[in-house]
Amino acid sequence: MSLEQVDGADWRSAKKDRMRALFAPRSVALVGVSDNNDMSRCVHANMLRHGFQGRSYLVNPNRDTVHGQRSLKSLSSIAEPIDMVFALVSGSRLLDLMEEAGECGVRSVCVLGGGFGENGLQGEERQRLLNQVAAKHSQVVLGPNTIGYLNVPAGCVFYGSPLRAPIYTDLAVVPGDIGFVIQSGIIAHAALRGMLVRNVGPSLIVATGNEANLEVHDVIDYLVDDEATKVIGLFIETIRDHEGFRRAAQRALEAGKPIVAMKAGRSAVAAKTAISHTGALVGDAHVYSAAFEKLGVISVPSLDDLMVTCAYLSNYGVPSGRRAALVAVSGGFCEIFADRAAEVGIETPEFSRSTIAALTKILPDTGTASNPLDTTGAAQTDPNLFPRSIDIITKDPNFDVLFVQRSVWTSSIPDVSAVIGTYRPWATAIAASPIPVVLVGDLMAQVSDFEADFLKASQLPPEIGGLQHGLAAFAAAAGWAEFRRHNLQRIEAPAALESKHYQPLSGERRGTWAEHCSLDWLAANGIPVVPWRLAKSREAAVAAANELGYPAVVKVSSAQLPHKSAVGGVVLGLADAEDVRDAFDVVVDAARRHDAAIEIDGALVMPMRERALELIVGIVRDPTWGLTLAVGLGGVWTEVLNDSNVTPLPVSGEEVKRLLLGLRGARLFSGGHGVPKVDMEKLAQTIVDVADLAAAAGDSLESLEVNPIRVAGNAIEALDSLVIWRDR
Amino acid sequence: MSLEQVDGADWRSAKKDRMRALFAPRSVALVGVSDNNDMSRCVHANMLRHGFQGRSYLVNPNRDTVHGQRSLKSLSSIAEPIDMVFALVSGSRLLDLMEEAGECGVRSVCVLGGGFGENGLQGEERQRLLNQVAAKHSQVVLGPNTIGYLNVPAGCVFYGSPLRAPIYTDLAVVPGDIGFVIQSGIIAHAALRGMLVRNVGPSLIVATGNEANLEVHDVIDYLVDDEATKVIGLFIETIRDHEGFRRAAQRALEAGKPIVAMKAGRSAVAAKTAISHTGALVGDAHVYSAAFEKLGVISVPSLDDLMVTCAYLSNYGVPSGRRAALVAVSGGFCEIFADRAAEVGIETPEFSRSTIAALTKILPDTGTASNPLDTTGAAQTDPNLFPRSIDIITKDPNFDVLFVQRSVWTSSIPDVSAVIGTYRPWATAIAASPIPVVLVGDLMAQVSDFEADFLKASQLPPEIGGLQHGLAAFAAAAGWAEFRRHNLQRIEAPAALESKHYQPLSGERRGTWAEHCSLDWLAANGIPVVPWRLAKSREAAVAAANELGYPAVVKVSSAQLPHKSAVGGVVLGLADAEDVRDAFDVVVDAARRHDAAIEIDGALVMPMRERALELIVGIVRDPTWGLTLAVGLGGVWTEVLNDSNVTPLPVSGEEVKRLLLGLRGARLFSGGHGVPKVDMEKLAQTIVDVADLAAAAGDSLESLEVNPIRVAGNAIEALDSLVIWRDR
Repeated sequence: MSLEQVDGADWRSAKKDRMRALFAPRSVALVGVSDNNDMSRCVHANMLRHGFQGRSYLVNPNRDTVHGQRSLKSLSSIAEPIDMVFALVSGSRLLDLMEEAGECGVRSVCVLGGGFGENGLQGEERQRLLNQVAAKHSQVVLGPNTIGYLNVPAGCVFYGSPLRAPIYTDLAVVPGDIGFVIQSGIIAHAALRGMLVRNVGPSLIVATGNEANLEVHDVIDYLVDDEATKVIGLFIETIRDHEGFRRAAQRALEAGKPIVAMKAGRSAVAAKTAISHTGALVGDAHVYSAAFEKLGVISVPSLDDLMVTCAYLSNYGVPSGRRAALVAVSGGFCEIFADRAAEVGIETPEFSRSTIAALTKILPDTGTASNPLDTTGAAQTDPNLFPRSIDIITKDPNFDVLFVQRSVWTSSIPDVSAVIGTYRPWATAIAASPIPVVLVGDLMAQVSDFEADFLKASQLPPEIGGLQHGLAAFAAAAGWAEFRRHNLQRIEAPAALESKHYQPLSGERRGTWAEHCSLDWLAANGIPVVPWRLAKSREAAVAAANELGYPAVVKVSSAQLPHKSAVGGVVLGLADAEDVRDAFDVVVDAARRHDAAIEIDGALVMPMRERALELIVGIVRDPTWGLTLAVGLGGVWTEVLNDSNVTPLPVSGEEVKRLLLGLRGARLFSGGHGVPKVDMEKLAQTIVDVADLAAAAGDSLESLEVNPIRVAGNAIEALDSLVIWRDR
Repeated sequence: MSLEQVDGADWRSAKKDRMRALFAPRSVALVGVSDNNDMSRCVHANMLRHGFQGRSYLVNPNRDTVHGQRSLKSLSSIAEPIDMVFALVSGSRLLDLMEEAGECGVRSVCVLGGGFGENGLQGEERQRLLNQVAAKHSQVVLGPNTIGYLNVPAGCVFYGSPLRAPIYTDLAVVPGDIGFVIQSGIIAHAALRGMLVRNVGPSLIVATGNEANLEVHDVIDYLVDDEATKVIGLFIETIRDHEGFRRAAQRALEAGKPIVAMKAGRSAVAAKTAISHTGALVGDAHVYSAAFEKLGVISVPSLDDLMVTCAYLSNYGVPSGRRAALVAVSGGFCEIFADRAAEVGIETPEFSRSTIAALTKILPDTGTASNPLDTTGAAQTDPNLFPRSIDIITKDPNFDVLFVQRSVWTSSIPDVSAVIGTYRPWATAIAASPIPVVLVGDLMAQVSDFEADFLKASQLPPEIGGLQHGLAAFAAAAGWAEFRRHNLQRIEAPAALESKHYQPLSGERRGTWAEHCSLDWLAANGIPVVPWRLAKSREAAVAAANELGYPAVVKVSSAQLPHKSAVGGVVLGLADAEDVRDAFDVVVDAARRHDAAIEIDGALVMPMRERALELIVGIVRDPTWGLTLAVGLGGVWTEVLNDSNVTPLPVSGEEVKRLLLGLRGARLFSGGHGVPKVDMEKLAQTIVDVADLAAAAGDSLESLEVNPIRVAGNAIEALDSLVIWRDR
């Protein structure tokens, strides 16, 4: 069965089988092992140390023994079927090995070696050949240029970097429920360290390397089905298949497994077509964040936040809401908590009356029963003040969560049992709570070995990573829960659009269209457009203006002149027939003066509209996410402020409203400042119609920009448009 | 010598002597000690454990022995002079003790007990009495309601919270060079923990409590003179004396000791007078940050950043610039570094040609010699690749600093000597470097005991707190160095203004002035104002308009009607005499309809100006920082965007330009969009003149707002103004 035979859904399902063989193999051949190779030693040691339960074979044609184990001359000489080949060979020898593996029926290969796609033209060619062989044998390939993976609960650790070896690292690996998909080997190592000090562990960590045919979304897909995985963490440099990613993200959302993603390479501005305004808007406005937000993927700005957020979800699960109370030992801590809660969007409602009454009874005279609760220094001498406060507050229906101030032990202390005794009432109160009780310290501190032992013995939950990172993690988790509640049914595949019928286009789908073609296309598809006539002569222009009314606008029309204003090809505010007649000549001459060879269709005549709110609505093709909508306020707002928001298509009316209301100038939609209140429903629907039209145009469209859309209350009208096709 | 006799500079100098006795006493009396009191036990144990070298006396009238030491009946019964009384008594007994101390010549008192200013009306009265006694005896008082202080290098630790005691904490305290001034006892504890895990230590940590007469700035002043202190960290809830703070900050700047401050209580919006626009602008725009920026105080958003930034400065000192290179083991790390560098403003120039040539020789074929430098996995097998890269890059004149990727040891590893051997070439390369070599890990990790020992043995500098926090700390330190270079001479005391001569005011300095009084005052002080006439009758209005030109504006004039537009008291665009005559009646009637009892001065007549750029310039009284300037773009910019910047007075032309160019709409100053390019020098000078006028008006001024100032190129003119005095 070759790749050609198992395309689409079949290949996806075949991929899953092969990924199971890859990540949880019953039998493995390590090919190209050598005692002289550090990586080889590492992989072999890691395999043994983490308790691989399957059968392993070493292959080296020139040695009988490698790493103290018998080695075989070739893959073919292994008598039993092999689930996974772990390849330590490189270059053309790798291609031979893949052929050999294919002939032996091995469908899962992990390739450590580099020198492929990441390494110039020659490397690219080699990777193309690798892909060919893989397709021929219908193999999945992790890598090339990967450091391997760790499936810790299954005891399958095939990983080329040292773990618990004296020279390089001090890393222990404990199994857990966080799955990581990582596009940089070294970050896999950071994740291991990060989990260790947050009292959580990995289910599966996969470094995807060059992603020959296993991409980020394939591994996400696998993790969605993996019972050991509860939370998915990503370190992303680039997403190669946004549709695949979208599908995987949706499956994760449905399965209730949050994805937490950190994107690197934010400072590198991707090269974009700069013909349309929208191109620049999209480039600046972080399409990745917008896409992640749309797909319910939690975006984090740093590795610290990646680790703290994954650890929060692993330790505490998904919150039911964001209404939080705090019990703390000091006013200073309460203040910082309140600041940070406000920053990240945690609500801190007041205590109910009965809670206030009950707290007042147990607080010292100097204390006040308000949220966040400062129990005053008294908590240092009365070990029951915190547990009793926990008992009282967790019964208050105003709250989804109670935070309790507690810092981790910085290092070991002599008398552990006394400490555990002190915290026993805490553990009892927390165990009896109907809502999560979350421990939070002032600083982001690591779980030391002593702290880990203490947590186990005291049955306390782990601290969440300090007020700065921990509260952000909670808020992100709560936001994910809300998104899931509201959006589970809304993530449509773009295929849903195909059922709509769109008018055929008036022009050929290539190059840049003249304005009248674009306007025609919009109007034919039900989008409100200013009335216009294409006039071929002065007299035709006058007739058009007489029909459409004064004052009038005259613009030269040419597909080769998308920026006609800049060359004097537009004249506004024409009061009468004579003005229009002159203007026709002016705009045509201006275009000719700009470029004598230009092909001119004539001039567009339109009525001049009164000043109102103007928007830019553009759809451009993002290199990663495909067609992407940008909306912004027109004129000075866009030119001076770059005030715009973006999201990949498809888009709903609700989303468009969210984008609009997220603009800095959003208060203008409520009216005032000389413009009437905007009919937001109608505006959003118009923008959705434009976006759907672009989506329906599909792969052939480069960009569709409506700039401006004029909005005066519920009078909404496209005044200009620019359509560019990919086929130039 | 009473407080009255030592006011002003004398009292400041006396304070310093008394603070030396307070923070480095040769003899101490702990009064109110008791075996039943946890805090008392703590203070006594901390004093002994940290090696107090002076003489200590315990005082308890009812016991012969306390904490296993002989105790005395009273302070007066101590035969020798006492430098500092540490008071564990509270309420009225404290006042008696302070009297007794005063009579015994004790001028330095630390008061642990609460129940003073923080505790209702009764507490406030008690604190007033305390202040009276202190003034009478010219005593400095740390607290009341403080947890005490730790002067670690001097062995003077008088601190009421447990250190290295089994039940509550595991804190060791090592001496260092960071001085902390903290307005919340519990945060002193966070600082101790935070320093311990960053391999730095405190010089002096002071919790200032209620600040009876020792405030934040007093302790800063002390730290500036303290030879053990190199860096000053602040945790601020409120600043009570902004002039004192300004002076102390300037001394710290002059002394080359950076101040790093975290402000809590950011979410609590201070109550403000809302009569003027500017009030709201100032409230929203974080005057504290602006004031800190102006004074060269580094602002940090979290306790994590406070600790990491102080630790950076303690470990690495002040950078000479912000041009940075990186040596890393992976591309992923380089990407995150580049992202974060761009975010926090670290420059990453390219390597010089000779550096590229030298690096290319040592890098593997797959590597590229560009900054940030990815040495590829080869660094894991070639232990000299990093040291050789360090040697090469640190000689490149393009850089002020070299970052080198290194993560801290998560926990101990068996063979320390092998590890140290591996890193010896690093230490050698770093020691030979002409620029600082700064180690940075992926995550913010803590220095474990093992790591601390390793650092000592390997002579490597400590890791700085991860890419997220560590690079922000470096950038803040570099920013501080730049500020110091450029601003050392610019911090003027407001007293400098007094030498300017300001015209006397045309009105009485009370209540709200009618517009014409405000305009008069501005004009008399050299600020360009639109021509205007106050007309008492229709005919006078017409005469004025005829003189000033058409189109004209007519506004009703009344001190009781600051918002005349809102009630129809302003008519614009009057074309001729008849229009002006009608308008006079319209605006006067409108004011009367609004409030029949209103006192009307007549109507202001002005020429109507063409549309141009409009600015709001306002000075309001901030409760902490006093008179504070806000500048913003007028109209929709302020109303919709709240686009404004603030800074406390006094202000220089350079600062005003920085505020203006920091506005979101700053691109409008370059011209375009229908307005000419702005003469920034002239505009800044006009704003400085307005600010200086407000400053010269001094304590009696509540707010002075010029809204709008019209700016058309170099034609700058105040069109309206509102002056409000504190005396209503």
